[in-house]
Formats: sequence, structure tokens, C-alpha cells
Amino acid sequence: MHVGVLTGGGDCPGLNAVIRAVTQSLIRDAGARVTGIERGFLGLIERRVQPLDSHAVSGILHQGGTILGAHNAADPFHWPGNERGGDVSADVLAYARELGLDALVVIGGDGTMRIAHRFQQLGLPVVGVPKTIDNDLLHTERSFGFDSAVAVVAEALQRLETTARSHRRVMVLETMGRYAGWIALEGGLAGGADAILLPELPYDLQAIATLCHEREAEAGFTLICIAEGAHPAGGAMTVQAHLAHSPDPVRLGGVGEALRAQLQPLLASEVRSTQLGHVQRGGQPTAFDRVLSTRFGCHAAEMVARREFGRMVVLRGDACTSVPLSEVAGGSRRVPPDHPLLRAAASLGISLGRPCGAAPSSATP
Amino acid sequence: MHVGVLTGGGDCPGLNAVIRAVTQSLIRDAGARVTGIERGFLGLIERRVQPLDSHAVSGILHQGGTILGAHNAADPFHWPGNERGGDVSADVLAYARELGLDALVVIGGDGTMRIAHRFQQLGLPVVGVPKTIDNDLLHTERSFGFDSAVAVVAEALQRLETTARSHRRVMVLETMGRYAGWIALEGGLAGGADAILLPELPYDLQAIATLCHEREAEAGFTLICIAEGAHPAGGAMTVQAHLAHSPDPVRLGGVGEALRAQLQPLLASEVRSTQLGHVQRGGQPTAFDRVLSTRFGCHAAEMVARREFGRMVVLRGDACTSVPLSEVAGGSRRVPPDHPLLRAAASLGISLGRPCGAAPSSATP
Amino acid sequence: MHVGVLTGGGDCPGLNAVIRAVTQSLIRDAGARVTGIERGFLGLIERRVQPLDSHAVSGILHQGGTILGAHNAADPFHWPGNERGGDVSADVLAYARELGLDALVVIGGDGTMRIAHRFQQLGLPVVGVPKTIDNDLLHTERSFGFDSAVAVVAEALQRLETTARSHRRVMVLETMGRYAGWIALEGGLAGGADAILLPELPYDLQAIATLCHEREAEAGFTLICIAEGAHPAGGAMTVQAHLAHSPDPVRLGGVGEALRAQLQPLLASEVRSTQLGHVQRGGQPTAFDRVLSTRFGCHAAEMVARREFGRMVVLRGDACTSVPLSEVAGGSRRVPPDHPLLRAAASLGISLGRPCGAAPSSATP
Amino acid sequence: MHVGVLTGGGDCPGLNAVIRAVTQSLIRDAGARVTGIERGFLGLIERRVQPLDSHAVSGILHQGGTILGAHNAADPFHWPGNERGGDVSADVLAYARELGLDALVVIGGDGTMRIAHRFQQLGLPVVGVPKTIDNDLLHTERSFGFDSAVAVVAEALQRLETTARSHRRVMVLETMGRYAGWIALEGGLAGGADAILLPELPYDLQAIATLCHEREAEAGFTLICIAEGAHPAGGAMTVQAHLAHSPDPVRLGGVGEALRAQLQPLLASEVRSTQLGHVQRGGQPTAFDRVLSTRFGCHAAEMVARREFGRMVVLRGDACTSVPLSEVAGGSRRVPPDHPLLRAAASLGISLGRPCGAAPSSATP
Repeated sequence: MHVGVLTGGGDCPGLNAVIRAVTQSLIRDAGARVTGIERGFLGLIERRVQPLDSHAVSGILHQGGTILGAHNAADPFHWPGNERGGDVSADVLAYARELGLDALVVIGGDGTMRIAHRFQQLGLPVVGVPKTIDNDLLHTERSFGFDSAVAVVAEALQRLETTARSHRRVMVLETMGRYAGWIALEGGLAGGADAILLPELPYDLQAIATLCHEREAEAGFTLICIAEGAHPAGGAMTVQAHLAHSPDPVRLGGVGEALRAQLQPLLASEVRSTQLGHVQRGGQPTAFDRVLSTRFGCHAAEMVARREFGRMVVLRGDACTSVPLSEVAGGSRRVPPDHPLLRAAASLGISLGRPCGAAPSSATP
Repeated sequence: MHVGVLTGGGDCPGLNAVIRAVTQSLIRDAGARVTGIERGFLGLIERRVQPLDSHAVSGILHQGGTILGAHNAADPFHWPGNERGGDVSADVLAYARELGLDALVVIGGDGTMRIAHRFQQLGLPVVGVPKTIDNDLLHTERSFGFDSAVAVVAEALQRLETTARSHRRVMVLETMGRYAGWIALEGGLAGGADAILLPELPYDLQAIATLCHEREAEAGFTLICIAEGAHPAGGAMTVQAHLAHSPDPVRLGGVGEALRAQLQPLLASEVRSTQLGHVQRGGQPTAFDRVLSTRFGCHAAEMVARREFGRMVVLRGDACTSVPLSEVAGGSRRVPPDHPLLRAAASLGISLGRPCGAAPSSATP
Repeated sequence: MHVGVLTGGGDCPGLNAVIRAVTQSLIRDAGARVTGIERGFLGLIERRVQPLDSHAVSGILHQGGTILGAHNAADPFHWPGNERGGDVSADVLAYARELGLDALVVIGGDGTMRIAHRFQQLGLPVVGVPKTIDNDLLHTERSFGFDSAVAVVAEALQRLETTARSHRRVMVLETMGRYAGWIALEGGLAGGADAILLPELPYDLQAIATLCHEREAEAGFTLICIAEGAHPAGGAMTVQAHLAHSPDPVRLGGVGEALRAQLQPLLASEVRSTQLGHVQRGGQPTAFDRVLSTRFGCHAAEMVARREFGRMVVLRGDACTSVPLSEVAGGSRRVPPDHPLLRAAASLGISLGRPCGAAPSSATP
Repeated sequence: MHVGVLTGGGDCPGLNAVIRAVTQSLIRDAGARVTGIERGFLGLIERRVQPLDSHAVSGILHQGGTILGAHNAADPFHWPGNERGGDVSADVLAYARELGLDALVVIGGDGTMRIAHRFQQLGLPVVGVPKTIDNDLLHTERSFGFDSAVAVVAEALQRLETTARSHRRVMVLETMGRYAGWIALEGGLAGGADAILLPELPYDLQAIATLCHEREAEAGFTLICIAEGAHPAGGAMTVQAHLAHSPDPVRLGGVGEALRAQLQPLLASEVRSTQLGHVQRGGQPTAFDRVLSTRFGCHAAEMVARREFGRMVVLRGDACTSVPLSEVAGGSRRVPPDHPLLRAAASLGISLGRPCGAAPSSATP
């Protein structure tokens, strides 16, 4: 049996741990030969692969990134600069046959799974492993990388707290999370944020200013954790207006900086913002993520051995199982307004936004 | 409403995060007054308490240990040096009435919950919060502190790997886990151990020596992670025999050191052992444990507000719920021989022991 | 003897360790009474102090920030909104007499030492302790906080490397250092940067682009560490031009983002930038900084006991000694063009800028 | 020019950073060819080498251990099992000639430098780089690895403090340091130890018990940091007597465990001991150690290029320079009784032993 392994989309702590587990399990339990595809689907398009054996995956458990390389946007069904309207899937399938691949283990997110599903339908047997640092894939309760990102956010907040407390400042930390606020929510809770602003719950600038005022009088400082996709109630207009004259609004400051600029005139304290950026997705996975990645990898290898194709590994409760690839694509798991962690945050007095159309909650004074 | 909070048994990262969440939630959502009992049930015996308000629990989210103090062995039903055969529970109840406590939140393990249950039966309303660094309490999938301990073990293994690899040594790391091997199992997986030895799966010295031999020829080094309660197949006799002339066998070396002494004569490589000890249970909780502790604390406060007494918070799937205190005591969650993590470990080629009475598994060559 | 302690200027890891060491040493060895002044010189203006004893400084060794609070800009000789042209120094001296202060230990940087020196001249005995996260104070080889900032930068670079390597990107990390590039230099060396850009050595955009090109072909990625005060040769004009339409150039992106925007059109690889911000100065001091802070604090206490006033502690070689306050102010220690670390960087092939007026060095291909 | 590189003795964080800096500098600045000798002098005896180029040393800056492998006891002048009384130095010189080595860079401690010196005398040009995790080599103020070990000790003490404080215990931490107490001294200061016991200052058990008693009444707990070579005043007899019936006294418990056993009967609090072991020398070097290692490596390469042979790199003040190999061997830098850090520790109230023959100091009540 000859199995290909591929990591699609952006990098994420734990990818190497999955590659190691898949490779060692396939070699050991299924007697398989394993080949790594370089840089996601790009490797199948440009025909770049490398053999994976015990030696190649030795010592990579702790390493961030992916030894196979990553590419954010290589889609064989839409590959620019190709005469056939960008569809090079037939070439990819031909290459897979040339390699003699009996199956492909595809580690990736929503977009990668959509591509994987199409190859499955075209006859290339596929097993998917969910990868989303934002923890927003449907069907799986947790995915690897998320715990590592949360740990980075929590540590940054803890560092910012000491300087906020000493200088009696308002500190704004912007985290990843364009559509789903899980990282800001768990990172903010773990880091002791006083306000947590998510894409799912538009915030009220005045409520945040009130919180900062109240805290100026007592604790003396305020920590705000804001996801990059968060926006004020009434639309993202205010942020965009503020940044309208900027050539590249997201890069030149981001929503954290925009919130800082809006808050500062309303407050006596100094307001400062920090944007964590790529530091959140680089580096070593936490121990938790190493165990989860290893589990996912071993489960994917078992699925290959059982020829359980066209499905993606998921975690449910404390057990690994799988769902059809067709069910994975086209949706994402956002923070529901009644999630227990939101309830917990509110009962701790953490300021949150409120669902669109909702009346002001008691948590935002 | 006046609520007491108490941390029983040994300390554990995350205790302060629970205390903070319980206190802030009770004050904010239930308008309660909160009193901290010092050093577990000892504070109720010796009448030492302290008021808990927002200020008292500010900034403790990250702190290891417990601001209330801990005591391993204070049981009001068996309190030595008392004329009534050691039962001072009536005094404790009288003191609780004097304080005007309407409820008691008890954070602790198996033994603490047994005591809590008896007080509930005697009329003191109790809500329990599970605390077990070993992750071995029945009914809850995870408890706080465990992730932190696993992280310490994984980091120690990672450190030991560099020296093992450079010197081509066999390194033995002894972890906590007298009856349940969860810490050694997850810590060993996350830290890249080549053999993981648990109390649940007696090990075969010769199989471990064979593994080390094989690795001497290839990778050149071997990492062994052994729980303090692990023992060789055929009984713990060999270890005890080895240490028989030691006045205090567990302290003077432990099972890791005993394994080292047994392995050394069989191998050409040097064998070294390290015992992590209390470093595993001290220090800051991981971000994961801070979130879980906060959730447990908020859920316990909700239970108090709903007068849902005589029950303990548990985590099932991704949801907090509760079970009767009567069901908690008198059992522990050990690693079952068919656990998916054991299967994953075996398919990675990690050497494990085998269940009592089982034939040698393929994982132990 | 009654001694005041004050932390001036911005916060810095290790301030609390100094406060603890000064306080405990003064109490123990000089039998002194110690009073903490709140928020730098603001506390002397607004008459806010707190007693410092063994209990008050217990457990603060590891804490970031300062328990006394900080204020960046409180100068009693220039205090806005005062009828006497802003000079409230006489009030401060009167308050010091009221308190009965025999001496003042002032922990701070260049600006703080200038103020301290004036009070010394006005008859208030002062001992200075150098505080500069940028490590740019004259006369002292090292100051506390710097090692902690370097550690944060090195860890961020290490994280960014995994994602740069996986995605074959150019990653730009902007660090603190407006006038002196020590943090970027040591952080960049420790973090494995391929180019290190300092305020002292204007950079050549084309040389950096060439480096990135060369690395695209080999390693596949490039790590650039740039101090916030770095600028291209030929003047900072290009950066400012790029950001001219931005209302707040430094905040909305900074020089790292400007460099990214300039590099991107020249390269095939994606270029990304990250600005570490306040994360660099918050949080726990490293072990090194705790030892250095403790040493500085104990030495300052000895100087008070010996009535060695009007001087600031400095580290020379491996010994603490002192210099007159008059010599400290009005200068800063910048990275000299012939510094051994620059020579080491060049011989590793790290791209550096070159001194104003210098011909292109061999290190910038 | 063809240069060999060799790491002798035990491993130490920073070795790989030195190897990387030496290799890259020699290739870049001297146009040299570089060959790595495997496992210290063993590689010259057993003729095992590997080529070192830019690719081979890429990405190893952060790695603990040594990519060349280490061997504690391979001395070509005393090599057991050889007909000529163990002297295989002539074979080694012949092999060096066969390889065409023009120079050898030897990274190691006291023992390794002694061997290096003899080869220099026999005509093989040598440059030495000091390596001592204990920081006890003569002539150099700091060596790499030491800062990393101190950081591990400080973190362990910080973890132990939380559990000591919660349970009101006495915690004993045993560190490396058989003859010189630098690790225990700086680690103990950085970790907040209440007593620091060094080989250089025999301790008085009764004084330590008194300290614990005093702290039982106040703080409630005591942290003791003891170097593995520390011993009670009046000779190490008491420890050895205690452990006399143990087959391997150092391994089965060590001096920390012995101190625990001696203290426990004198105290009401529980006493617990932990022995850090190899965790102290494994793992990633700190940022400080990476910079120092890089500097040492680049300086050694410069010395080779200048043909400055027979000398070892040293750090003096903030500058790298060198001393003759003949001056290095046969001595070690121990903590002098009047060292400023000891004075600082005493003025903080930290309990220390006292120099042999000295009267009890005021620091040991």
C-alpha cells in the first residue's frame, strides 16, 4: 500500500505531530509506504514529493510548522495561468496514478476538505484530518493548534497586565479570528481580560468606555481582548471610516488599533494596542495539541487501513470518529450566543458585545 | 446568601482560578457573601476563615497553589486527639451555623467528596468541584491541573531528549500517578517517550531492555516515562527487593531509579533516572486549565444559586453538568487496556506493558 | 533612618525585584524604615506613599511591572497647570521633609536621573539605580529588563521561523529601540534573524531585497529583525513618505510594516510583518534579570547605609560600583559600528546596515 | 584551510550555537572547510567524522545537546584496552594528518582543555572554547549553558513555592554543583530561596532548622536550594552516615533527600525534597546563552584565521579575549566567601553556610 500525505492551507502547531503519527502508524500497522506531498496541493501540481519513513519523522513531534511546506491557495480545480480554464485536476490524478498512490491523507481546513472531497469523487481515495487554528470547523469539538494559539494569547495578556497595572492603562490585544471568536474567547478568559470582543457579538463602544471608567476608579487598568473580526454594533462602518484613508486597513493597525483610537478620546487613561499576528500560529504546539495531533494521525492511519475513505476524522466527546467529507465543507462553527463560556464570562463581569438585534445584556453595564 | 468555599486535599494548578470564578459569580449573579475556609476542613475545625470579595480574588487567576491554603489530611470525622473518638463533625456544623453559611462549595478529590457528602447528609448544603491532578475521578472526563502536569512532564522529556541523544543514553523519567497512569500516558506521548509504563499495565523488564538494544543501534538513545505506581509483571516484588535495604523506598529513589538499576546491567548505554516530584503540581496552570477551572467555578456558583446541592460538577463531552456526591466516592478512573491513546501509542511503536494475564502485545517486541 | 523608594519612567521587568532587595536590605542591615512613593515623582507631587516592609515585598521577586506604579512623565520641575511656571520642586522637598525622609532611592532611566540629580543638588540625598529596557544608559554594561526583552524577541523570532519556513515567506519583526538597537541586535542574534536593522546603521532596501532573493533560492525563507528606530540609508524619508497619509505613523504600522510594504513589490515570496509592542516590557523578568535586579537593589541599600549619595549604581565587568549622577544624564549608549556583536553577526552572514557615510560592507551583499 | 570541530565532556545548552557560529564564520570569513568530530575525542580515536557546512548547521541555534554527540570520558592519552598502556595519541595525530586538519576547535571544560593542550604541544594547532555548565572555569567570567541551568532552577523553585505556600511545607531543591555552587547561588537568588547551601560554605543543620521554625510562624513555608556538593559543617560525615546502607548514595536520594531526612524530625511542618537532575542541562539554551555561544564561536573562528593557537576564548568584562591553554587546566573557580552575591543574599536574610573555620555569620541566625 502506498499512501500520500499532504498539509493544505495555512500552517498550524501540531501539523508535524500529525505527519509523524500518520507515517509511523501506516508503516508499522499497515506495512504501507508513505510519500509526503510538498506544499499542499501545489506539490501534486508541480510534482514535488519526498519519501517519509521513520527517520524522516523522527524528532518532529515538537516542531511548529510543517516539514512538508504549506501553501495557502493552491487549488488544482482553480489554478491560474492554465489553458483549460484553470482546472489541472486531471494532471493531478494522472500524477497520483504514476506515483501509485492507493490513498491520500489530507490535513487541512474547510477549503482543503472541499478540494479533497472532489478528488474522492474523482476516484482518489481520501482520508481527511481537520486543521483549523480558529477551532471553527464543523463536527469536531477541538482541533489541534487552537490550544497553542490560546496559550500564546493568554501569555501575552498576562504580560500586558503587568504594564497596564503599573501605568494604569487600558491595553487592547488583537487576536486572530476573522469569523469565529474562539481564540479571543478562551485566550481572553485564560489571560484575565476585562472585555472580550468577538465577531459574533458586535460591541458597543460606549459600554466599553463605561467599563474602563469604572475600572479606572477601582483596579486602575483594563485589559481588552478583541478578535480581528470583531466590530461595533451598527456595522463595521465606524472602524472602516476611521481607517478609510489607510491603503491597507487590516495591516495598518487592525481593529485593535481602531478601537484604541476610538476609545482614547473618551478616557483619561492612556490606551495602547498590540496585534499579536503570526506569533500566534508559529512555534511549538502545547502538550495538549501534541497529544490531540498524535491521536488524529493514528486514527487517520487506522481509517486508511480499514479503507474508510471519503471521510474526515473528528473528535466527539473524548472519542475520535469520522464524518463524510461532503458534510464538512461550506460551514463553520461560530460561538453561539448562549455558549457556556459566554455565560461564565458574563458572570465574572467580563464585558461582551451582544447578539445582533439583542437588547443590551447585563454583562455590558 | 452566605457561601463558604474550601479547597481540600493536595494542591493543584487551577485551584485559585476556581476560587476566583466561584467568588465573582456568586457575588455578581447571586448577590451572595462569600467566605473562604482556610486549609481545607482544618479551617472549619480550627475556626479559621477569611472574607472573599472581588479584591481578594483579583490577580489570582494565574497563580499556582491555593490562596486558602491546603491540608492533606484534615477529616472532621476522623480527627486525632479528640475525646469523642475523633469525630468533630458536630463542632464543624455548629461553626457553620454560627457563620451563617447557607452553602459550602467544596473543591477536592475523592476523599474530600466523601467528607462533603457526609456533611450534606447532616444538613449542610454542599456543591462539589472535582480536583484531581491525576485525572482519575469518576464521572468527569477532564479535571483542571492535569493539563498543567502533563505539560511539565512533556517539557522535561523534551529536555532529557537532547542530552540522551547527545550522549546516546537511556533516560528514565518518573512521573506522578500512583494508581492511574494518565499523566505518564499523555505526558509520555506529548514528550516523545519510547516506552511508557503505567500502573495499569505491568511491564516486562526484558522487553524494555530489547527496545533499548534496538534503539542503541538506530536512534542511539531511549526515553522511558514511568508512573510512580508502575511495576513489573509478576508483581512489584522485584522493585521492592531491590530497594529492600532502603529505609524509605519511595523517597530514596522511586520506581524510576529502581528501573534504572535493573536496566543498567543489561545494556551497554548509560542509564540515568530523574524524578520530577512536586514540580509537577506547583506553578501556574496552563491556559487550558485556567479556562476549565473558570468554567467549573462558574458552574458551581450557578448550582448554588439554583440550590442544586449534594452534587458535584462534571465535564461530559464539552458540557458541564453534575452528578450526585454519593456516586463520586469510592472509585477511580484508571487507564482501560483498550483506551484509544494506548492503541495510538502502540501503533507508534511505543513500548507499553500489558494487562495482567495478557499475552505479550505486539507493541512490546 | 527613613528611606523613600521610587520607580520613575516606563515599567521594566525587574523593578519589583529591585524594590524587594532595597527594602529588605535597608530594613535588615541598616535598621531603616522604608516608604514607597507611588507612580514615580507623581507620588511626591500628589503626596501618595505606602509603607514598605518585609510583608509588602514578599512574593514580588517574579512579578513584572512595579508594585509602586509608574508614570512616564511626572517631572516636579516641569509640572503643567501650576501657577509657578510648572516648578513644584519646593513642594516636593517640603513633603519629603514632612515625611522625614533621610534619603531617596530612585530607580529610573536617563530622564529620571536628571530629576534625581537636581533634587540631590537641592539637598535631598539620592541614590540612583539604572533602569533601561533598551540597555542604553551610559556607564553601566547591563541593566535589568533588557535580558527579558531580548528573550521575548528571540522567542517571537523562533515562532515566526516555523511559519516562515513552512510558507517560504519573508517575516519582519519590529522590536523596541528608538535610538539604540541593542534589543534588536541581541534578540535578532538569539532568534536566528537573517537581517538585523538598527537605528545606528541605516539600511539599504536593495541589499535586503537581494538577501531575500538569495535565500528564496536556498533556505526558502528570510527572518528580518528591525528596531523601531531603524531607517533606510539616505534618511527616514522613504518610510515617512510611505506613511504620510496615515494620521499616526508610528502606531499605524510602524517601520516593520513600512519595510514590508517596500519589500513586497521587489519579491516573489509573501512578506509579513509583526510588531511586538508592549509584550516586550511586560511580564516576568528572566532569572538573569532577577539576579541583576537583586544585586542592584542590595548595592543601592549599601550605598544608602554608607551615605554614598548623589551617585548611581553601575555594573562594570562583573562588579557593582557607582558613578556621579551628574555624569549619567544627557547621553546614551548606542551600538558602536565596531561592536564585537556586529562583527559576529557579519561573519555569520547576517545582513546589517552600514554606518552613515560608510561604503557598503561585505555583510550586505 | 581545513578545520576540525569537537565537543568534549558532558553536554550543555549552547553547544550547537557554538558549532554553528564556528562553522559559518570559518566558511565565510576564512574560506575554510570544516569537519565535525563525532562524540568528542572518541571520534578521533574511532575515526568518525562528518562534514559541516551551512546546511548542516542551519536551524540548530536553539537546539539543546550537540549535533556532534558527546562522550564524557574519551581521553586519547588514557584509552583503556590498548596495548601501549592506553596512549592512542599517536594514532589520533596520524588520523588528523590523514584528514589534513590544519587546526582543531575544541569546545569543552577543564579536562577537555588539558587534553587539547597536550595535542597542541604535540603539534596539532588547537583553539579552545570554554564549556562549563557550572560556570567554574578559571579565567572566564561567564560560560554558556550556565544561564540556562540557572533559569531551570529558578523556575523549579517558583513552582515549588506555590505548593510550599499552600501546604505550609519546607521544600528542598537539589541542584547541580559538585564543587562550585554558582548554579545553586544564582538559581536560588532568582527563585526566591530562603536558604542557599553551597559546597563552598558548609551548613549548620541547627541554623537551618531555626530558620524554618521562624518562617513557620510568619510566612508559613521555607524554600531551600542545595547544591549536590553541599555538606554540613564538621564534614560530610552526617550525610554519608545517613545514607551508609544505600548501595548508591548519590543516586538514591542525594544530599537534598539527606537534608530532608535530617530536618524532618526537628520540624512540625512537612519537609519534601526534589532533585532536578539532568533536566538542568538538557533543552534549549536561553537567549543569553545563544548570544554568548555565538560570540564564543565567532571569536574562536577569528583566532583560527589569525593562527592564534594554543589558547582558549574567555569573556572578561564585556569583551572576548583569550588565555593560554596551559593556564586553564588544573583549577576551578569556586564561590569566594566574600562574593557580592553572597553579601546580597545575606542582606536579604537568606540563610547561608559559613566558610570553614569561620564563626557563625549574622545571616545564619
